[in-house]
Amino acid sequence: MNAPVTLADHLDALTEYWSQRVVAEANGSLFKVAKGIGSTRWHAHEDEDETFLLLAGELTIQLRAGDVRLRPGDLFVIPRGVEHCPVAGDEARFLIIGPSVTSNAAGGKPEWSYNGGTQPVETA
Amino acid sequence: MNAPVTLADHLDALTEYWSQRVVAEANGSLFKVAKGIGSTRWHAHEDEDETFLLLAGELTIQLRAGDVRLRPGDLFVIPRGVEHCPVAGDEARFLIIGPSVTSNAAGGKPEWSYNGGTQPVETA
Repeated sequence: MNAPVTLADHLDALTEYWSQRVVAEANGSLFKVAKGIGSTRWHAHEDEDETFLLLAGELTIQLRAGDVRLRPGDLFVIPRGVEHCPVAGDEARFLIIGPSVTSNAAGGKPEWSYNGGTQPVETA
Repeated sequence: MNAPVTLADHLDALTEYWSQRVVAEANGSLFKVAKGIGSTRWHAHEDEDETFLLLAGELTIQLRAGDVRLRPGDLFVIPRGVEHCPVAGDEARFLIIGPSVTSNAAGGKPEWSYNGGTQPVETA
């Protein structure tokens, strides 16, 4: 139990965008690393708050009330029930904290990102 | 609600070492910034896991089973009931996540650090 969790190592090993990897658990919360590029889809989590901590790159959390632009070292909590749509500029690397893994279709994961997809596919 | 929490700004405003400032709350967990220098005292939290994410500097979590050395971007969970004693080299800046504020005497906060004390006082 004496090894720290080096977030960068887990992020380097991630081959899929908008896919969360659980790296630690505490008090019923999961600590999950993920990386993103391009846009997710609008969605809300009715039963959990979702916390983003940006580690590298640029990430904008689009809300119906306006955009929240994160820089590395910025944290933002999306309260349960609030619609949001995260968008990354260049590759964004971040930590997400919450009680469950939300990188699925209901959680806004875009279709192109499944199965190791690494580039957003533009659809006309 | 559209402003991110810039951890560095909150850390810059902290005048006391080993003192936690709550910057966000989600799912019953508090996100707390703190900075440390020198050593805390050995203690354990019987009813909560405590998560450290080092943002800057060097931080060693001493455990009875050995030391855990964190570098910036490293995360470590101290399970409930496990004795620990965090020690900072130069000023360490970190995020702590857990259900309550633990920067008090029972939580290992050293006496010199109260009332804005900024330097460890060596006791012979």
